[in-house]
Amino acid sequence: MSNPAISYTRITRVQDTIVTATDDVLAAEEPLEIQLIYGPAENRQQQSIAVTMRTPGQDAELATGFLFTEGIIKTGKDIKAVSSESETTNIILVSLNEEVEPLLASAQRNFVASAACGMCGKPDLHAVYTGVAVNKGDTVTTSWSSSLITQLPDILRQQQQLFDDTGGIHAAALFDHSGALQVLREDIGRHNAVDKLIGAALRQQLLPMEQYLLLLSGRAGFELIQKAAMAGIKVIAAVGAPSGMAVKMAREWDITLIGFLREQRFNIYHGEHRIMIANQSVSDNK
Amino acid sequence: MSNPAISYTRITRVQDTIVTATDDVLAAEEPLEIQLIYGPAENRQQQSIAVTMRTPGQDAELATGFLFTEGIIKTGKDIKAVSSESETTNIILVSLNEEVEPLLASAQRNFVASAACGMCGKPDLHAVYTGVAVNKGDTVTTSWSSSLITQLPDILRQQQQLFDDTGGIHAAALFDHSGALQVLREDIGRHNAVDKLIGAALRQQLLPMEQYLLLLSGRAGFELIQKAAMAGIKVIAAVGAPSGMAVKMAREWDITLIGFLREQRFNIYHGEHRIMIANQSVSDNK
Repeated sequence: MSNPAISYTRITRVQDTIVTATDDVLAAEEPLEIQLIYGPAENRQQQSIAVTMRTPGQDAELATGFLFTEGIIKTGKDIKAVSSESETTNIILVSLNEEVEPLLASAQRNFVASAACGMCGKPDLHAVYTGVAVNKGDTVTTSWSSSLITQLPDILRQQQQLFDDTGGIHAAALFDHSGALQVLREDIGRHNAVDKLIGAALRQQLLPMEQYLLLLSGRAGFELIQKAAMAGIKVIAAVGAPSGMAVKMAREWDITLIGFLREQRFNIYHGEHRIMIANQSVSDNK
Repeated sequence: MSNPAISYTRITRVQDTIVTATDDVLAAEEPLEIQLIYGPAENRQQQSIAVTMRTPGQDAELATGFLFTEGIIKTGKDIKAVSSESETTNIILVSLNEEVEPLLASAQRNFVASAACGMCGKPDLHAVYTGVAVNKGDTVTTSWSSSLITQLPDILRQQQQLFDDTGGIHAAALFDHSGALQVLREDIGRHNAVDKLIGAALRQQLLPMEQYLLLLSGRAGFELIQKAAMAGIKVIAAVGAPSGMAVKMAREWDITLIGFLREQRFNIYHGEHRIMIANQSVSDNK
């Protein structure tokens, strides 16, 4: 069976003055429409919720994660069934249990945020997300040693199959406290990689997610922090840079945010108290 | 005057077991709402068109480029005035000349494409863009030497001020045939960097754009190819990987697409005939 996440193509490779015709592997980028089916048996509704450009594969996880991180459903158990034909049709149907009322106003707000009007004149994005319940306290105390954290990018990289094939794809990974990789997902869109990961964690019942660390292969924008916050993740480490808005949100929601995680070094933008160096907690310098 | 594109923050830097409190520079990420004012004097309309998360700065160019690459206006001359208060309000007002009819159906299609429903069941994205007029022929014959192309990333990198400051921002650059950098724009969103660049080119009347090469600092997704195609750009070179959909569109529209442009090497995914090596055109191997 062919892998829908990649495609093969004929290219011309140029090195100095040497020209070679060769085969290459590309990461696929296709639209996925998420449709929601909900309501009581006597009045079942069907509604298109979103279209995202994604790398095909793990579409049920993507849809589950998207609905959860956008606040439309509250738990993976809200879902009764997910259709399995998305790779051929690019449409995925998510059917909710009859008693579940999806928070479609939440969806409305988020599409507004990503596409048109609505955030109109608000001083910043916090105002847009005040409806989102983010648990600020830690129910379990988890601290992470810096020597473990600096090993994680290598573990991720060794497991990143699609990146190896294509050289052009984002990854998100969930690690437990011993440094064991629990979930790894890849996608051409970094927000999709996180949605797939959170959807997988929900379906595998890896809860509460605050016991895990989320590793991002690229930069950390505000949208990824918001999605992780919705899942209750308390420690996020990115190989790339965070944005100003991402740091602001991590501080607002008391999420430990690490950036520029490379070799033996990293920056902590917030939440130093969850990081241990030689068995000592790092103190907040701000 | 402070630079709205960046912010300063206090962070903790960890290297091995050495912990240092230090200052850091972050790339700003803020919403920008684009509002359009159009129609005859006796019936002037105002409509919210889009919200994009962007790095503040060059907002007039961003709005101009967005309206053009999304097909809502046909030329920079359609614009009568652009408001200048966007950095404080995060809203930009673009006023069209009275006789101009914006193609709002085009806007509708694109927001649909980026946010909700509409591409529903179509086999791929081509169908979504059939309304877009892309000129497939070259009116001027331009070929680019491989030795010039391989120098461009260094020229870009040397000029990338925000990347130097923050380590986390995308760039798009327009080069002329002699390798001279004509326009460089940076943004936390790669599509915004391209919109700012095309908006700047329109405002500076760098037309026709088919005489220039577009260099992208990162990966080439389908959306960037579509925006470049709208501007008539015929040669796109990306430092990162193209997606499968990007290659498909470049072939459909006969745009030369180069990826993995690093040091003395690159891959040509389509349009070999516009590339010269040691004064010889490269032949298409497909």
